[in-house]
Amino acid sequence: MNIFFTGFASAADEFGHKHKRFTENIRAYHAHIRDNDICMTHTLVNPQVDRSRPVEKQDKDLAAKIVKETDAGIVIRGARMVSTLCAYAHDLLVLPSTYLATSKEAEPYAFGFSVAVNAPGLRFICRPSVTHQNAASPMDYPLSARFDETDAMVIFDDVLVPWDRVFIHRDAELCNGLYNRTGIMPQIMHQFSTKNLAKAEFMMGLAFAIARSTNIDSHLHVQGMLAELIQSTEFVRACVRASEVDAAPGSSGVMTPAAMPLWTVRMMFPRMFVRMCEIIQLLGAGGLVAVPSYAELDGPAAVDVTTYFQAANGDATSRIKLFRLAFDAAVSSFSGRQQLYERYYSGDPVRLAGTLYGLYDKDTYVDRILGMLDNLEARQQS
Amino acid sequence: MNIFFTGFASAADEFGHKHKRFTENIRAYHAHIRDNDICMTHTLVNPQVDRSRPVEKQDKDLAAKIVKETDAGIVIRGARMVSTLCAYAHDLLVLPSTYLATSKEAEPYAFGFSVAVNAPGLRFICRPSVTHQNAASPMDYPLSARFDETDAMVIFDDVLVPWDRVFIHRDAELCNGLYNRTGIMPQIMHQFSTKNLAKAEFMMGLAFAIARSTNIDSHLHVQGMLAELIQSTEFVRACVRASEVDAAPGSSGVMTPAAMPLWTVRMMFPRMFVRMCEIIQLLGAGGLVAVPSYAELDGPAAVDVTTYFQAANGDATSRIKLFRLAFDAAVSSFSGRQQLYERYYSGDPVRLAGTLYGLYDKDTYVDRILGMLDNLEARQQS
Amino acid sequence: MNIFFTGFASAADEFGHKHKRFTENIRAYHAHIRDNDICMTHTLVNPQVDRSRPVEKQDKDLAAKIVKETDAGIVIRGARMVSTLCAYAHDLLVLPSTYLATSKEAEPYAFGFSVAVNAPGLRFICRPSVTHQNAASPMDYPLSARFDETDAMVIFDDVLVPWDRVFIHRDAELCNGLYNRTGIMPQIMHQFSTKNLAKAEFMMGLAFAIARSTNIDSHLHVQGMLAELIQSTEFVRACVRASEVDAAPGSSGVMTPAAMPLWTVRMMFPRMFVRMCEIIQLLGAGGLVAVPSYAELDGPAAVDVTTYFQAANGDATSRIKLFRLAFDAAVSSFSGRQQLYERYYSGDPVRLAGTLYGLYDKDTYVDRILGMLDNLEARQQS
Amino acid sequence: MNIFFTGFASAADEFGHKHKRFTENIRAYHAHIRDNDICMTHTLVNPQVDRSRPVEKQDKDLAAKIVKETDAGIVIRGARMVSTLCAYAHDLLVLPSTYLATSKEAEPYAFGFSVAVNAPGLRFICRPSVTHQNAASPMDYPLSARFDETDAMVIFDDVLVPWDRVFIHRDAELCNGLYNRTGIMPQIMHQFSTKNLAKAEFMMGLAFAIARSTNIDSHLHVQGMLAELIQSTEFVRACVRASEVDAAPGSSGVMTPAAMPLWTVRMMFPRMFVRMCEIIQLLGAGGLVAVPSYAELDGPAAVDVTTYFQAANGDATSRIKLFRLAFDAAVSSFSGRQQLYERYYSGDPVRLAGTLYGLYDKDTYVDRILGMLDNLEARQQS
Repeated sequence: MNIFFTGFASAADEFGHKHKRFTENIRAYHAHIRDNDICMTHTLVNPQVDRSRPVEKQDKDLAAKIVKETDAGIVIRGARMVSTLCAYAHDLLVLPSTYLATSKEAEPYAFGFSVAVNAPGLRFICRPSVTHQNAASPMDYPLSARFDETDAMVIFDDVLVPWDRVFIHRDAELCNGLYNRTGIMPQIMHQFSTKNLAKAEFMMGLAFAIARSTNIDSHLHVQGMLAELIQSTEFVRACVRASEVDAAPGSSGVMTPAAMPLWTVRMMFPRMFVRMCEIIQLLGAGGLVAVPSYAELDGPAAVDVTTYFQAANGDATSRIKLFRLAFDAAVSSFSGRQQLYERYYSGDPVRLAGTLYGLYDKDTYVDRILGMLDNLEARQQS
Repeated sequence: MNIFFTGFASAADEFGHKHKRFTENIRAYHAHIRDNDICMTHTLVNPQVDRSRPVEKQDKDLAAKIVKETDAGIVIRGARMVSTLCAYAHDLLVLPSTYLATSKEAEPYAFGFSVAVNAPGLRFICRPSVTHQNAASPMDYPLSARFDETDAMVIFDDVLVPWDRVFIHRDAELCNGLYNRTGIMPQIMHQFSTKNLAKAEFMMGLAFAIARSTNIDSHLHVQGMLAELIQSTEFVRACVRASEVDAAPGSSGVMTPAAMPLWTVRMMFPRMFVRMCEIIQLLGAGGLVAVPSYAELDGPAAVDVTTYFQAANGDATSRIKLFRLAFDAAVSSFSGRQQLYERYYSGDPVRLAGTLYGLYDKDTYVDRILGMLDNLEARQQS
Repeated sequence: MNIFFTGFASAADEFGHKHKRFTENIRAYHAHIRDNDICMTHTLVNPQVDRSRPVEKQDKDLAAKIVKETDAGIVIRGARMVSTLCAYAHDLLVLPSTYLATSKEAEPYAFGFSVAVNAPGLRFICRPSVTHQNAASPMDYPLSARFDETDAMVIFDDVLVPWDRVFIHRDAELCNGLYNRTGIMPQIMHQFSTKNLAKAEFMMGLAFAIARSTNIDSHLHVQGMLAELIQSTEFVRACVRASEVDAAPGSSGVMTPAAMPLWTVRMMFPRMFVRMCEIIQLLGAGGLVAVPSYAELDGPAAVDVTTYFQAANGDATSRIKLFRLAFDAAVSSFSGRQQLYERYYSGDPVRLAGTLYGLYDKDTYVDRILGMLDNLEARQQS
Repeated sequence: MNIFFTGFASAADEFGHKHKRFTENIRAYHAHIRDNDICMTHTLVNPQVDRSRPVEKQDKDLAAKIVKETDAGIVIRGARMVSTLCAYAHDLLVLPSTYLATSKEAEPYAFGFSVAVNAPGLRFICRPSVTHQNAASPMDYPLSARFDETDAMVIFDDVLVPWDRVFIHRDAELCNGLYNRTGIMPQIMHQFSTKNLAKAEFMMGLAFAIARSTNIDSHLHVQGMLAELIQSTEFVRACVRASEVDAAPGSSGVMTPAAMPLWTVRMMFPRMFVRMCEIIQLLGAGGLVAVPSYAELDGPAAVDVTTYFQAANGDATSRIKLFRLAFDAAVSSFSGRQQLYERYYSGDPVRLAGTLYGLYDKDTYVDRILGMLDNLEARQQS
């Protein structure tokens, strides 16, 4: 079940602020995806053309926009990025992300809808896979051989979206701040924080295993790096926990996790994940590039390999398996793409910081400071 | 009520592992401080002499140690650091901190006791105050004029500690890991995390107020720094919350907060606090040293001061008050000592990381990694 | 001899781009200050009022500006910050810094001149001193007792500046980018880089001395911090050296150091200096607040002090002297103000980065990349 | 010409401190490689087995060691890591790196020699290539398709090294500190600093090109990142320059660059390089994974690709070329291996910091501090 859409459904009333129809569309589509176990990919961002100007002021007008309305629906032309896992999806969910002007010019870019991935005119243009395709053994790339999430640009070549799949229509006001204004964002943040916790536990366990294999965990500075991984993991866990215990029904009545612990994860985890990769590089060091293919255990140099790739606490097989996993998790193209993903999947961190500052309750804290100063001043003067 | 000793009392049985008497001493003293509202200072650390060697191997033997036992009690000679707030305390609590060898030589340094601050032979030698004593107005140093916690070295010149105030006696085994082994540490960590939350809220509110006064919060990079303060504050809050909701009775039956969320605060907050001071410096910038004494508002240049120290959103009085508070919180000797305090009050961070790594449940996570690799391997081979 | 003005004199022609008179004023004033050994303070920045708007768009118009021209000179009203060391100066040099619009509105703020510090209507309003004035001994604050550079706001209450001391008059075009366009900036950067080298050597030597006193330099992580100080010091030294060996006559014929090595220092040193203070805090740790006044060596507790404040490699006197110096250099109000100074004396680092990017020769490097790609492409296709 | 060996030759006398023969061997081999343009790979490090113990105390004795001397030479058995570019080399140079005990036990590991890569019993076991072998176009991986430097473990299966290729024989005293004691290290450091400058210029130019392609260099925070790249590049350039202008003949009479500017690069560049990769990730952002194969420009979706992958300042071809280069330089397995290489090629940074602290002239700076304190004290007392 798509968490985005669960969030949307919980805020269905919001979508109907001008036309009831969109609330009904949201509810009907929610029932549809729930009952039919629909898998979705989504796309939230306009393509990078001129990033110094808003979408409606581009010299090259390449972003997806509404070019026409018909009785059957809206017609979309242009591109959107980044859609992931499109190969497995039934439907493509197209949603607003960045701030839109509330002008006539920007209106064609203000929409939200769902469309079947095989709709006429809809095309996905994928990046090259990060998989190392001719690897001697799948054990050499245990992650990239299995888990590459192919990213794609989505091209709309006059794609017709039927009216009952339209959720936002030429409505910048509804688009802007949608996720934070409704209860959608906490739902999404809870989902990705859970994902972050799983990743943190994985990287931490991997680091422990590497450190133990050659006994470097007896060094104080290594313990320092391992303790950092513990902190990052337990930080995410504590925040997820706090968001759950303080969950409360949102305006729509849907149970909503507390937002602030999750915002904290959202803002702080990306750097932590990059640091996790760095720590695994620092622990494995030269060993990460001195380990051969798993296939060598069974090749012409098997005797040498079995002898000379032992670690203090493990035979050559276990060391090669472990260090190839570490290479894949922290050095490979797969890892590089993971790091990039963590930095950006939830939005541009520079803009997000502005959003967080904007929505935070600042007055409570400012008033305390000013009140304290007034009290001190009064005491001085009396 | 001293949180250290509340923790100790909850682990009273532990202290009697060799002699029941110490359990009884703990319980009786706990009742005493509770019933008489006793205020305590404490000292945990040996003086810095030769920090490359353990306490029992020093050329200059200056650390406090047991020099004699008598019928009346134990006699202590030597020095301990850092005792804070001694001027307000009834009793001095002397506790083990760093790891001790379990040798005959180290035994005299393995103790824990309480003693009245006015015991014969007990002396406190304080550092110079960080207060700026001739300030024209107390409003110029609103924090340092009020809240300097004087640190002191404690000198024991053959101080007699009566037996009923002795809790640990020549027992390195009991000393080592005492705080983490018993439920004491989570109690202490919960207390100081609450203190950290208060500090984080204060620094955040102060930063908001400064940023608003001159409208710099319209700049994206300033919002970024303010968002960092929000993250740090909400991080501490989430961890305190998580530690509370997962509190459970410890071995002694006393309700004990969950440890890991608090360890996270313990390890991560010190750098955050230093960064908070840095952010306030970066927001205030030259303005922090361009603001005169509050007394100038009423001095010979009052007209100039009232005119030229206005900010966009405040008159000269409010700006001077606010910027002097910011100076005191983020630039002054008081601030420097606060930063130092946060770095070290809970122990040497390098050693603490080792402790955290030592006590963490590593096997669970290592086993997952190794199990996953074994599964993948089995699949390859089948 | 003021380095700013030496730089100005070397670019005297530039000042006369509209009226020759200003070139002559520059030359005459340069001869005057050289021949009479004139000491100058200067002020470059408008006061912080509304930092989201340019100086000419403020609701509260407090910045110094030209309010009138007379036969005798120009008349200035308003405030400027931050003037330092005004108590020792003969003249106040008033120079442009931040970017000015080239509009009619901004013209009154576009000036440069020199004026005697005792000119009628000119007033300096100082911040409180960072000195701890009632210290028991000057050895307790060896730096702040001697070297506080008092910062001040400068108020111009209709100050008349004679025409022969006016160097820039209602000329935003000349103001903008003045320092980088002429050879002035490299001269200034060379001067402050030399100052930075002296500071780096001082902090490094201090850190070595502290680390040796208690033998902590046997620890690998301490060596790591000490090596950082070596790197920072040798980095500044190498850049100063490179700027000197590649010095060349500028457009005015004055020998001008190579700019880029000095820009590197300008951008990188502020964080290094703050880190130096941090490292001294981390090395001194609790010892920094456990050391008493130097006066205690001669006070009622002299015997205790002499005994218990020894370090492995030094008696109590040498340890107290050293640790009080360290406190003053890295923890005190004086240190806080030094850190703030290093961050900002050369301009807002966020704006400076933009300036550096703007003036750097980017094309050379971009062309190499694009050329390489074209070559590769050509090879593929052939 | 191998820079290691040029350095060695310049310190030939040192090698003969016990037996003249080794000096002669060095000189003769130097002439040989110079005259015959011999290409060498080298190996400096023992394999990672138990990294908490020295090489001579391992339970699993896998490191290369001398097992026998014969009239013909020395016989080596065991493994060494990491040898790079072995496929192109004539000879393998085997040199000491980490500290060795001067005990009988450690003696067999104390050697230095050269041997032909095709010597009987000598085997190289390589890691899997980081190349993406089935890429649709070599333009998709312009770096990894060309420049993978294959790392290998070297196995000595009783390899005979003739006496005239032996340079160090059971001589731990000679091994320890060899590089810094002789003039070898500055020569090596000058070579790799030059390499670092080339890399810095490349990454900087790439970042400029990316930023310009979509006009993000109009954003202040982007300018900040680009300015960082300028600083890193100009830092390396200034240090290389300073090392050259202060070059002087070493003890052997060979011109030797000044060491300290190069040590600065050695210690500071690795993090800078990793940060360069990070900056390119932050600039390219989602665009790095939204760009398809270069082959798509000529594939079935060519019309879409040509339209929708344009950037503000470039057509789809130039954007795809540029962004695939950026992916390869900053995200791919090739990039990950580069980052790892920069972190470790010059030694473990934690140990290196200790080495730098050890060899630095500390007394000069400590004496200044202590002298200053004595002066101040004398003034107080007079």
